[in-house]
Amino acid sequence: MTNLAEYIETVNGIFDRENFVSEPHELYEPIDYTLRLGGKRIRPTLLLAANSLFGGDIETVKDAALGIETFHNFTLLHDDLMDRSPLRRGKPTVYTKWDENTAVLSGDTMFAIAWRYFLRQPTTQLREILQCFVETAIEVCEGQQKDMNFERRGLADVSLADYLDMIRQKTAVLLAGALKIGALYADAPVEDISRLYDFGIHLGLAFQMQDDLLDGYGDTAVFGKKTGQDIRDNKISFLLLTALTMCDDTKRSALTGYFSSKDNMDEEEKVRRVMEIYDSIGLKAEVEKNVDAEFVAAKRSLDMIDAEENLKKPLRELVTALDGRKK
Amino acid sequence: MTNLAEYIETVNGIFDRENFVSEPHELYEPIDYTLRLGGKRIRPTLLLAANSLFGGDIETVKDAALGIETFHNFTLLHDDLMDRSPLRRGKPTVYTKWDENTAVLSGDTMFAIAWRYFLRQPTTQLREILQCFVETAIEVCEGQQKDMNFERRGLADVSLADYLDMIRQKTAVLLAGALKIGALYADAPVEDISRLYDFGIHLGLAFQMQDDLLDGYGDTAVFGKKTGQDIRDNKISFLLLTALTMCDDTKRSALTGYFSSKDNMDEEEKVRRVMEIYDSIGLKAEVEKNVDAEFVAAKRSLDMIDAEENLKKPLRELVTALDGRKK
Repeated sequence: MTNLAEYIETVNGIFDRENFVSEPHELYEPIDYTLRLGGKRIRPTLLLAANSLFGGDIETVKDAALGIETFHNFTLLHDDLMDRSPLRRGKPTVYTKWDENTAVLSGDTMFAIAWRYFLRQPTTQLREILQCFVETAIEVCEGQQKDMNFERRGLADVSLADYLDMIRQKTAVLLAGALKIGALYADAPVEDISRLYDFGIHLGLAFQMQDDLLDGYGDTAVFGKKTGQDIRDNKISFLLLTALTMCDDTKRSALTGYFSSKDNMDEEEKVRRVMEIYDSIGLKAEVEKNVDAEFVAAKRSLDMIDAEENLKKPLRELVTALDGRKK
Repeated sequence: MTNLAEYIETVNGIFDRENFVSEPHELYEPIDYTLRLGGKRIRPTLLLAANSLFGGDIETVKDAALGIETFHNFTLLHDDLMDRSPLRRGKPTVYTKWDENTAVLSGDTMFAIAWRYFLRQPTTQLREILQCFVETAIEVCEGQQKDMNFERRGLADVSLADYLDMIRQKTAVLLAGALKIGALYADAPVEDISRLYDFGIHLGLAFQMQDDLLDGYGDTAVFGKKTGQDIRDNKISFLLLTALTMCDDTKRSALTGYFSSKDNMDEEEKVRRVMEIYDSIGLKAEVEKNVDAEFVAAKRSLDMIDAEENLKKPLRELVTALDGRKK
């Protein structure tokens, strides 16, 4: 396979053929529902592509691909419960469609099932692979805790560095971990695994920073939802924290005021005023520069990997697709 | 080590020396709190004793002992959240001392940490050990779901066989799994592992059936809490389901009536009347016969294992201690 579309098709085929239903059905129906919601399935795609880079065989990593995506969906399921998000991929989340206890227990079971997938295929690298998986999983939990802490701590107590550390753990390490695991199955050289891991970290940071950028500057028609939601929710974002480093004192205290929950201003008026400040300091260009820098760093890590260029092509296509995404 | 007290002391020492605190502390403090609450630590004790049966070395299984108990405490933490239990071992549960989100995420992290412990010690049996662990974990989740289902399904729809299946998954398989894992580390013969697993299942069933027995017939002064709580809570138990198989139609419909939540009778009056029916059919002796049968079956499985008698002694002491327990 030498293009991204083939990898995505392969991953979707793996999921289509897998059975997620068992007894008691009260436990497994929400799991099947969650894993069939689809989504971009970036993590298993990365795992497969990384494995191919070093001459791996799809058959030996398809269980790991199921495992990494099952884990990812478990974290989404519990995050949606903790964040009280009613929708995921346009469909009701498990805790709204069923109830809170179902979300807790089905999520726990998905985490266990992820391990079962990783254990299905024998491999001489088993301990190393699972150690990568468990350290990744723990970092994702730590990242989610840090994200929840931000809300309690408030704006004055969260730096741009804190935020980058949080998105690295909550998002980037899982992309990096998926790539590393794929490479470990193919017994790749240590230095290349490390470069691939860096590639995943930069890609993940770029992805998350871009998410925040789209919330402020996405084209509503393409983006599919109203922009400015982070502002309405008083949510700490890469946009806001970057803006605070660029503002003079007057604008900084105005921004801080708008993002304090005590403010009773009309929501749309608030969005308009915040965006006015953002525009006045040239925030969009500054953030785009940061996003670009992460994509460039990702490409540089990929360049340095000792593998055939045609095998790198799917990963390059993925970078291009994410770089150019409008939603 | 040739007696139970030494094993328990060893297990407690392992926990005393282990550090469970890390950053962010909002995530790890509830984990440390939970793992320091103590409890009987039966599962790691079983794991160590099973390992010694086949000439194992404590040093190679102490991480697995930490892993199995961390997993067990994770399930208690999430069960307490789902069951809304305010107290555990006489102390506030995590969701009451902190909040629901903390209980969800600290629990998830404990499950991951359990895996980290299992991965810390290299072993040639790694895949087999972890497969035993993951299948055990999945069964425990299924058992908890079945337990929650009973409340929704109501008495008419739950048989004694359903109940035994539930307690087997929710309680017994983890005791059996701990024993099997200990034996796997010592590379024990397959037939002995299977006998040890059966020993754990019988022990677990006896333990849980006895729990229900003590709720009805425990000596309040020793038991430490009021008896009859399952009756007050309309809780389906081994006592009730056994009673229903022994009753004539009149008593059966009376019992069913008392356990329907629509009944507004004074609680203590209800307990008195239910116990009157239980006594009239000789329930206590019948249930004791069942509990004894499980303990006897456990001992028989232990007898059949090809290991030195002095190494079996700690496990025999554990059976005796559980058999004679009054609380």
